[in-house]
Amino acid sequence: MLVRNGDKTHIHSTGTWSKSSLLLIFFKGVLERLNAGEVVIGDGGFVFALEKRGYVKAGPWTPEAAAEHPEAVRQLHREFLRAGSNVMQTFTFYASDDKLENRGNKLSFTGQQINEAACDLAREVANEGDALVAGGVSQTPSYLSCKSEDEVKAIFKKQLEVFIRKDVDFLIAEYFEHVEEAEWAVQVLKATGKPVAATLCIGPEGDMHGLSPGECAVRLVKAGADIVGVNCHFDPMTCVKTVRMMKEGVEKAGLKCHYMVQPLAYHTPDCNRQGFIDLPEFPFALEPRILSRWDMQQYAREAYNAGIRFIGGCCGFEPYHIRALAEELAPERGSLPAASEKHGLWASCLEMHTKPWVRARARREYWENLKPASGRPKCPSLSTPDGWGVTQGDAALVQQKEATTQDQLRPLFEKAKH
Amino acid sequence: MLVRNGDKTHIHSTGTWSKSSLLLIFFKGVLERLNAGEVVIGDGGFVFALEKRGYVKAGPWTPEAAAEHPEAVRQLHREFLRAGSNVMQTFTFYASDDKLENRGNKLSFTGQQINEAACDLAREVANEGDALVAGGVSQTPSYLSCKSEDEVKAIFKKQLEVFIRKDVDFLIAEYFEHVEEAEWAVQVLKATGKPVAATLCIGPEGDMHGLSPGECAVRLVKAGADIVGVNCHFDPMTCVKTVRMMKEGVEKAGLKCHYMVQPLAYHTPDCNRQGFIDLPEFPFALEPRILSRWDMQQYAREAYNAGIRFIGGCCGFEPYHIRALAEELAPERGSLPAASEKHGLWASCLEMHTKPWVRARARREYWENLKPASGRPKCPSLSTPDGWGVTQGDAALVQQKEATTQDQLRPLFEKAKH
Amino acid sequence: MLVRNGDKTHIHSTGTWSKSSLLLIFFKGVLERLNAGEVVIGDGGFVFALEKRGYVKAGPWTPEAAAEHPEAVRQLHREFLRAGSNVMQTFTFYASDDKLENRGNKLSFTGQQINEAACDLAREVANEGDALVAGGVSQTPSYLSCKSEDEVKAIFKKQLEVFIRKDVDFLIAEYFEHVEEAEWAVQVLKATGKPVAATLCIGPEGDMHGLSPGECAVRLVKAGADIVGVNCHFDPMTCVKTVRMMKEGVEKAGLKCHYMVQPLAYHTPDCNRQGFIDLPEFPFALEPRILSRWDMQQYAREAYNAGIRFIGGCCGFEPYHIRALAEELAPERGSLPAASEKHGLWASCLEMHTKPWVRARARREYWENLKPASGRPKCPSLSTPDGWGVTQGDAALVQQKEATTQDQLRPLFEKAKH
Amino acid sequence: MLVRNGDKTHIHSTGTWSKSSLLLIFFKGVLERLNAGEVVIGDGGFVFALEKRGYVKAGPWTPEAAAEHPEAVRQLHREFLRAGSNVMQTFTFYASDDKLENRGNKLSFTGQQINEAACDLAREVANEGDALVAGGVSQTPSYLSCKSEDEVKAIFKKQLEVFIRKDVDFLIAEYFEHVEEAEWAVQVLKATGKPVAATLCIGPEGDMHGLSPGECAVRLVKAGADIVGVNCHFDPMTCVKTVRMMKEGVEKAGLKCHYMVQPLAYHTPDCNRQGFIDLPEFPFALEPRILSRWDMQQYAREAYNAGIRFIGGCCGFEPYHIRALAEELAPERGSLPAASEKHGLWASCLEMHTKPWVRARARREYWENLKPASGRPKCPSLSTPDGWGVTQGDAALVQQKEATTQDQLRPLFEKAKH
Repeated sequence: MLVRNGDKTHIHSTGTWSKSSLLLIFFKGVLERLNAGEVVIGDGGFVFALEKRGYVKAGPWTPEAAAEHPEAVRQLHREFLRAGSNVMQTFTFYASDDKLENRGNKLSFTGQQINEAACDLAREVANEGDALVAGGVSQTPSYLSCKSEDEVKAIFKKQLEVFIRKDVDFLIAEYFEHVEEAEWAVQVLKATGKPVAATLCIGPEGDMHGLSPGECAVRLVKAGADIVGVNCHFDPMTCVKTVRMMKEGVEKAGLKCHYMVQPLAYHTPDCNRQGFIDLPEFPFALEPRILSRWDMQQYAREAYNAGIRFIGGCCGFEPYHIRALAEELAPERGSLPAASEKHGLWASCLEMHTKPWVRARARREYWENLKPASGRPKCPSLSTPDGWGVTQGDAALVQQKEATTQDQLRPLFEKAKH
Repeated sequence: MLVRNGDKTHIHSTGTWSKSSLLLIFFKGVLERLNAGEVVIGDGGFVFALEKRGYVKAGPWTPEAAAEHPEAVRQLHREFLRAGSNVMQTFTFYASDDKLENRGNKLSFTGQQINEAACDLAREVANEGDALVAGGVSQTPSYLSCKSEDEVKAIFKKQLEVFIRKDVDFLIAEYFEHVEEAEWAVQVLKATGKPVAATLCIGPEGDMHGLSPGECAVRLVKAGADIVGVNCHFDPMTCVKTVRMMKEGVEKAGLKCHYMVQPLAYHTPDCNRQGFIDLPEFPFALEPRILSRWDMQQYAREAYNAGIRFIGGCCGFEPYHIRALAEELAPERGSLPAASEKHGLWASCLEMHTKPWVRARARREYWENLKPASGRPKCPSLSTPDGWGVTQGDAALVQQKEATTQDQLRPLFEKAKH
Repeated sequence: MLVRNGDKTHIHSTGTWSKSSLLLIFFKGVLERLNAGEVVIGDGGFVFALEKRGYVKAGPWTPEAAAEHPEAVRQLHREFLRAGSNVMQTFTFYASDDKLENRGNKLSFTGQQINEAACDLAREVANEGDALVAGGVSQTPSYLSCKSEDEVKAIFKKQLEVFIRKDVDFLIAEYFEHVEEAEWAVQVLKATGKPVAATLCIGPEGDMHGLSPGECAVRLVKAGADIVGVNCHFDPMTCVKTVRMMKEGVEKAGLKCHYMVQPLAYHTPDCNRQGFIDLPEFPFALEPRILSRWDMQQYAREAYNAGIRFIGGCCGFEPYHIRALAEELAPERGSLPAASEKHGLWASCLEMHTKPWVRARARREYWENLKPASGRPKCPSLSTPDGWGVTQGDAALVQQKEATTQDQLRPLFEKAKH
Repeated sequence: MLVRNGDKTHIHSTGTWSKSSLLLIFFKGVLERLNAGEVVIGDGGFVFALEKRGYVKAGPWTPEAAAEHPEAVRQLHREFLRAGSNVMQTFTFYASDDKLENRGNKLSFTGQQINEAACDLAREVANEGDALVAGGVSQTPSYLSCKSEDEVKAIFKKQLEVFIRKDVDFLIAEYFEHVEEAEWAVQVLKATGKPVAATLCIGPEGDMHGLSPGECAVRLVKAGADIVGVNCHFDPMTCVKTVRMMKEGVEKAGLKCHYMVQPLAYHTPDCNRQGFIDLPEFPFALEPRILSRWDMQQYAREAYNAGIRFIGGCCGFEPYHIRALAEELAPERGSLPAASEKHGLWASCLEMHTKPWVRARARREYWENLKPASGRPKCPSLSTPDGWGVTQGDAALVQQKEATTQDQLRPLFEKAKH
């Protein structure tokens, strides 16, 4: 396997298990792939997956594991690669200095160290397969605290400096609740000359300032984004619906771009505008909402049919969820992912089960029609989301370095009761 | 850190995050710990966790990953260790030659290679913390196919030969549906002189031949087991209830032993005698049944109150589930696990969340009272399990090397429809 | 008690249990009441209630019971009166000759006989209390079969002839899926000089031809309706929402009218445009959807707050549901209904229960917060409605006198499977 | 129609709609029917049905409506007769003087007046069809308050005096939580020489003193009951299971009797020993648990298959539920009930529906396989019953004439919160 990173030519195995699928391919960037009509499979959500593995702290959700426990981050990259991901996103979510220092979070690594380590890990694993490295920035506490455009852009520039030095293949501005901040990010990223993708964490109701998905998408394209879409906050079908609305807006405006979607792996039909953050189960009781692999195949098909070609996942996506996307779209992509060697399309692997009634489940019709039970008869099927209606500019959202005190918490506990 | 495996003396960190908790401890075997009244935390289920990560094939459920993808198995061991596990079970489930060759499963590794690799990985990680290595055997297709006692015992002996050579700390005979086969396993294991634990995969209705949990436990103790209990097949509360029945049986018989429980991480109130295998959701749509960390804390307390001291998990347990056990029992164990550095008791980590309504969830009362929604309003909360009533001796269960054919499957598909 | 029907002066008891509430009142018509800001409580759904009592046949849903079993109809009128209804609707739903003869329905009574008997029963019971008699017409198979405006209007006129002769107090055109047919009905009714109410059986998505609730309401007011609103097909909260949209439309058009709502007593959050007819549970498995009395109190308050003053019920409403409306609005109405003598506000009657834990439920907070379980863990909480998209003009809807044949049914059964 | 009550010879219509089914039959008592292997269909629950109609007050649950609103009681009797009931139970539930005066319940009728009126109404309607009149007594507050056997028996005797004078056809001691009190009742009833049926309101866990269903049944038979079984408190399938256990007990004891079952029309899988009284939904939010007509047909078949021949209902049963029993058992009984004229076996009446997709539901397979949704996605499917563990002898159950005071209620409200 020959990999030359500098001039962007890789010769390598695609990682699929069939020997005949060994290919010589020339490096193709994300836009070349999308322009050629190829499907690009994204990866899954690192913060949630690594929280369950013991390396990320919910609350701050910061990515110090890249520097602190690189073996865990590397392993997760590998699993997504093996599952079919074409993109290794650097594990740099929330790795801006203002976020790293929020509310008493104490870390032994600087933002720069984390960003560098994350780039190295993503590149190392990407080179083991047919994957691109994407450097990512996301929304900042500074914006929520009403800092100026210059101040917010300075934060993005600082992260970006590392991405450029480490020569990532393209850039993603993701997880923005306000399109205004996302535009600022896109403007900064675009200046590098690298391809830029931008995803908001919004649903059909639009961003936190009330702009519709169509309007948001138009603004992102005008700001310079090559690929637009949504990530996080809503379940797959809701996200596909939102990107559809974006596409309509962009097309109506006579503009052009590619589309991407990286939703939650949780069913969230009961969400309001703020998404799953408002669900009472967030973030520690979302288990009953986790999508099955069959839900994922349905999502992949729906996204494909909607004209979306960059299809991945966010919080809750485990490697087997990504594999399900790759298996559903195997006809379009021309190959199965490496991890399918330990699976089988539509549960055909169950033909080897010792119990005959489980062997009887080795067929597509069975799993497509199954309505899985929760095993929780004392629980409801939908929740009432919190609706505090708090967004940018509200004092309760302002960034603070010090830990939240009991005096700050008590009124929140009280409010939450009523 | 000084580790001498031969004479069983380790000097090492307990793995907790506080620097002051560095301890010098002398090696204590599993029985010494249990005799001293300590809690022993087991690990989680490897086949299910690695299936989701892309390294284990559902259907055969065989552990070739130990040899094929050691980095993935090592990483999972590390996560459980970090979560608080005191036991690293060798990833040798179903690693008997008769099972490895079942129904067309083609592997590039022999049973011996897999068993050896698994022992090495378990020992490597165990030595990084306060953990013991347990070598495991489980039920065989040979028994289901009505092979003789000698033939079945020969299979256990073959696996055991590796465990002895690799000097595991103790042995576990686990996942037996018929107490008779478990007795045979215990007899073989006991002959080595190592401590022996034995767990059946049964519920309150007893084993597949209709013996009650109490009777089963008595037979296992008489066969030589030092620790008895149940693993897999049922949810935590059902398993604790079953072990309670075992304890009553053993005490009524005037016998003595230690107790262990390693349940599913799935809610299964709708199971019949055969356990979760019969649930229509097995194995690819169990997501809505996954226990939350709060369910796990409740389970740990319930198990402790029932007098069980070896408390772990089986299929569905992820590292954060084990951490929840260790956090619940931290007062009894005297320390928190390493991974608690990325958590916080009762969601205290959420005090650092940017949204005030999520900070309002940073308290025990909130999570203990929450009834989490499934987000699946078109699904039921309980299922009707399959009830084929097929067990040892039935032709449909007989071991065969060749792949199952469509001719064998078609009548099963038909039967499953009605 | 003095009742003079001719000159519309009644002297009678309001039917409440307190002796001091005996009142002398002069007859006030429906518009006088509404103009004075009074709440008018409607009655409940006769076809569903009498189907359960054994006097109405589901399928045809025709009201021959008025002539065939008058004692059953009279008793139901009395129960609604006692529960607080201010309106006795003549039991003449679907009593047009074209509907009475549909698809093999064989009756021993003519439409005229049924309409006359229904008027007599309504007047008899209305005179026992503070109630008005409303004569009702509803949508016709002729319209669905694309008959002309003249033909459809002729059907309404025929029914109306009886209502005029029997001197009902006002007229209701109710249960129309297409606003066009409702307009025709209103025009016919308006010509009599009696007050006219008109309710469509539509939800927020509008009528079957795609007109919005606001547009529909404007057209009904312009056609001459004094009171507009919706009845049937959707649950209370959905109906209130729809009437809110009607009110906005009417006010935006600079028009004026009164508003009424007579929803289902079934929870139908999963309905599409066609309403509960499309739910798989219609009409014989709707039980788990039935609203409790507490749901009804919430509905009454919501309707009142939306500015609706004619508040009643349709299919599924039993007398105790109407009583709940009257109890919730007792402060506004100034008295409790007669049937409250056998109840108690907010379950205070439970103070007399023999079991102390039931006495502990004798308080508002308990019932308002209760989330009642279905006792059906194998059932979902929402359904997928049928979506045949068939409406006026479709051959499958055309009126036929002869019974449906197996040849006509078989393709329907097939279609319903897929 | 000739009816001579004195010598027990009736000539009358069976009430079925077919003219050819006019029959001349000689009066057969309940035991003659059961001895001949006939199915006897009971009636439904009066207190719950009349509570919904506005004539019974929940809490005291007393039957003054028999004297106060005879037209309402007569109408309900008629509906049950029309639905197929062979037994008109006098509406005398809780009509003992000690119960009528409990906790501030103020009535304008004496127990004697109520009992007499109830007998007259039952006889009047029974004579309109093929029905027997059964006089009923039920458990007393005196027993719960630990009054003596003589005192309790005196209460039964007082009610009985009316039943004898009115010459009811047989007697039922029903709704007893403690078999001891039921035995006393049976002894008193037996002395009259009339056939005696006795039903406890218990489930498989047995009576409130812990006696098993088998033991209870044996004691009732020994006390003189000709027919034993259960009524109320549990859903149909649980009740059939309990009667099965009674039958096993009676047969094991070498005794003989007939069996009857009159369950709730509510699904109660989550009940404990005390039955539905303990469910949080009792009595005002049970709606989602109401059985459909198809559930009822399944129950009738199950009861029949268990060897039970007196099959009826209790709280929650409406006339259409009884009709469903009669329709399911029409092959065994040889005729359909009168009310089937307004129904159709297995929804065949829907063949006349105007919408083709509803006509597609006119078949057995459709309704038998339907899992009806609750329309309540924010509600659970099972509840946790209250478990106060309070029974006979507890101070909180003691009879008092005066109204419960706020001082008595407050500690209950507090207790109920925790």
